[in-house]
Amino acid sequence: MEYYQLNQANLIHYLQSLPEVQQKFSSFDHVEVREITDGNMNYAFIVTNKLDANQSVFVKQAPPYIKVLGEEWPLTRQRMVAEMNALHYQSSVCPEMVPKVYYQSEVLSVLIMQNLSNHAILRTELIQERCLPRLAEDLSTFLAETLFYSSDFALPSADKKAMVSKSSNQDMCKITEDFVFTYPFEHHEMNDYNPALSQSVIDSIQKNPNVRAHIAQMKYTFMNKPEALLHGDLHTSSVMVNVQQTFVIDPEFSFAGPMGFDIGALIANLYLNYFSHAHKSSAGSVDYSQWLLQTIDDLWYKFEGKFLSLWLEHEQSDQSAFMGKDLTGDSHQAFRHAFLKQLLSDTLGFAACEMIRRILGVAKVADFMQFEDQKLRATLETQALKMATTMLLNRQSYKNFDFISMSRF
Amino acid sequence: MEYYQLNQANLIHYLQSLPEVQQKFSSFDHVEVREITDGNMNYAFIVTNKLDANQSVFVKQAPPYIKVLGEEWPLTRQRMVAEMNALHYQSSVCPEMVPKVYYQSEVLSVLIMQNLSNHAILRTELIQERCLPRLAEDLSTFLAETLFYSSDFALPSADKKAMVSKSSNQDMCKITEDFVFTYPFEHHEMNDYNPALSQSVIDSIQKNPNVRAHIAQMKYTFMNKPEALLHGDLHTSSVMVNVQQTFVIDPEFSFAGPMGFDIGALIANLYLNYFSHAHKSSAGSVDYSQWLLQTIDDLWYKFEGKFLSLWLEHEQSDQSAFMGKDLTGDSHQAFRHAFLKQLLSDTLGFAACEMIRRILGVAKVADFMQFEDQKLRATLETQALKMATTMLLNRQSYKNFDFISMSRF
Repeated sequence: MEYYQLNQANLIHYLQSLPEVQQKFSSFDHVEVREITDGNMNYAFIVTNKLDANQSVFVKQAPPYIKVLGEEWPLTRQRMVAEMNALHYQSSVCPEMVPKVYYQSEVLSVLIMQNLSNHAILRTELIQERCLPRLAEDLSTFLAETLFYSSDFALPSADKKAMVSKSSNQDMCKITEDFVFTYPFEHHEMNDYNPALSQSVIDSIQKNPNVRAHIAQMKYTFMNKPEALLHGDLHTSSVMVNVQQTFVIDPEFSFAGPMGFDIGALIANLYLNYFSHAHKSSAGSVDYSQWLLQTIDDLWYKFEGKFLSLWLEHEQSDQSAFMGKDLTGDSHQAFRHAFLKQLLSDTLGFAACEMIRRILGVAKVADFMQFEDQKLRATLETQALKMATTMLLNRQSYKNFDFISMSRF
Repeated sequence: MEYYQLNQANLIHYLQSLPEVQQKFSSFDHVEVREITDGNMNYAFIVTNKLDANQSVFVKQAPPYIKVLGEEWPLTRQRMVAEMNALHYQSSVCPEMVPKVYYQSEVLSVLIMQNLSNHAILRTELIQERCLPRLAEDLSTFLAETLFYSSDFALPSADKKAMVSKSSNQDMCKITEDFVFTYPFEHHEMNDYNPALSQSVIDSIQKNPNVRAHIAQMKYTFMNKPEALLHGDLHTSSVMVNVQQTFVIDPEFSFAGPMGFDIGALIANLYLNYFSHAHKSSAGSVDYSQWLLQTIDDLWYKFEGKFLSLWLEHEQSDQSAFMGKDLTGDSHQAFRHAFLKQLLSDTLGFAACEMIRRILGVAKVADFMQFEDQKLRATLETQALKMATTMLLNRQSYKNFDFISMSRF
């Protein structure tokens, strides 16, 4: 079989040919195919039995180009292998938070998986000021488990190195290197600024040698720290939620990289949402904003606790430790403390890069794009940029996310 | 052809079968095979025409075990592929400092190369207090060129990632992880202490949680920073010298790792040599020691200058920069400064690990092993350990190697 493009016309025939999909449907006589048009990279379809909405699958196919830009923007289909690899790994350590894969084909770059029909995109929920009580708990679990179990603290040295090689995702990494860490910080034709954003604010980043040097350090770290298998694009549209459950989706940017990049991406997008509400004074909005800040704080705090627990547990069960035997009882603790301090610093640095690029770069967030009042949006974006810059430059001196006295920005 | 072991009996026959080797010899009628017995890992032979000593080759073969320990210590022959890969790369950027390869066979894990008959092992020369005026100049060139051209500053993103995957050397990395970064810092049966070294000195490292945490950070960096293609074992027995030339040999530990590991290994072994002479007061010894300290200082200073020059040149010729366009003229400079500061910190940290492991671990240096007076040796080892610890703990606050007021230790 060779690669061909799935579409509304041929999809059902293809699905009927797959035993793994057949067993999800009592019959294909009344199935409906709906194309999801808001993805940028890939084709996506929801296939549902109209007689029983529980009989439903989600189909995703990577074409050899960027879907929204068309065939003149080629992109290898390696990204789908990376996504399969990541989903497989994530569901091995954190099965309750990753959609089930029913079938996959590398030849067609196709994934057929659980349709999360009762879940909404996290970003949409946050824009609507919906508090989600499980969010910090669930996402801290996802982060702690996926990052710990693919690190040198859990894997034997050779297995870790094999994982790093296997999860190579060059093309997608290059997109991140350019669009997250480079273009937004120079005068690049692909940048897209809110016209109401003042030039002096843009210059305070792009023309600040100190900021630029710190951003470059984060780019270098992104490219030179394969410490764990990352999701690689963990913003709030890569999370689906309802009040009971949280799912993490779309790991097509997955590669072995710095842990702080995943944690930072998530936190950055929560802060961007925070700033998009920062002008509101209703009691509901104030409550929501407090919940959101508390969630960010909890996310790190819970992550730290869970990561440490996994680490301790693993050392005890494995009767060995990354750094060798502890002769005083204090050495392991001292290293764990130093490690988490560095991870927080990386997290803050990457969060800052993500916040800035979402405002100055081409890829915007709906949290801000929904504004009709561009001047108000610019005021809020300016606050977010100031906070990001502060976070970036001082990232080595913080102990947690409590530090953010939001009134300063 | 399958792998078989070369030896005195079959070697000449093998060499005669290779056109690349035939052309080095006018005849094989009077060739002499001498086995080099002081290597630990591999078999090595020098083959010379007794009628013309210029007709000579060096032959190296990796058996599927550690040579000195025998067949019950298996080790994959991957190390010879790593060495071939490294020699090929090093000679592409720095041909004058790497032995020429005449022939190589992955099947036999054999390298046949230039015999450096007019050169001596650097360590031996330093033990004999021989000043080598070209040393800092040559080794700084080797380090700057090999490290720069395999970094993200010189290679396109995808090529760099391909280099990292290709240079995987799992087994040899594991040896370093264990024998450099782990065993010497715990009570390990493989450690080998000078009996005259006081327990309190050993404890001041092995039982110091702060020291242990910093060592673990260096181990983590070793395993998680594939920034350039390293030599991987750049001590003073991996360098051959005479007054005109410097060669770097034996890159079988080569892999993509942190630049500071190569620079640090070299500097550590120079400091170990310094301390092995530190009790002498003759004018000759004092002059030698001053030359040596100046060489260490120069090595970093010259490395920094050459690395920066390559970086600047590359940015100008390539019309692009790692961090994007510089809008003020100060940003690139700010990043280069931050980068080199971090590299110095890594270098000092790795140098400290190497110095300590060469005193507490199993692999000793001849500089100290030649002592008959174990008490004197212990005094000097104690000084070296104190300096290494200071360097490790304060590695982020130094600007160069000028800092070392040797009288403190």
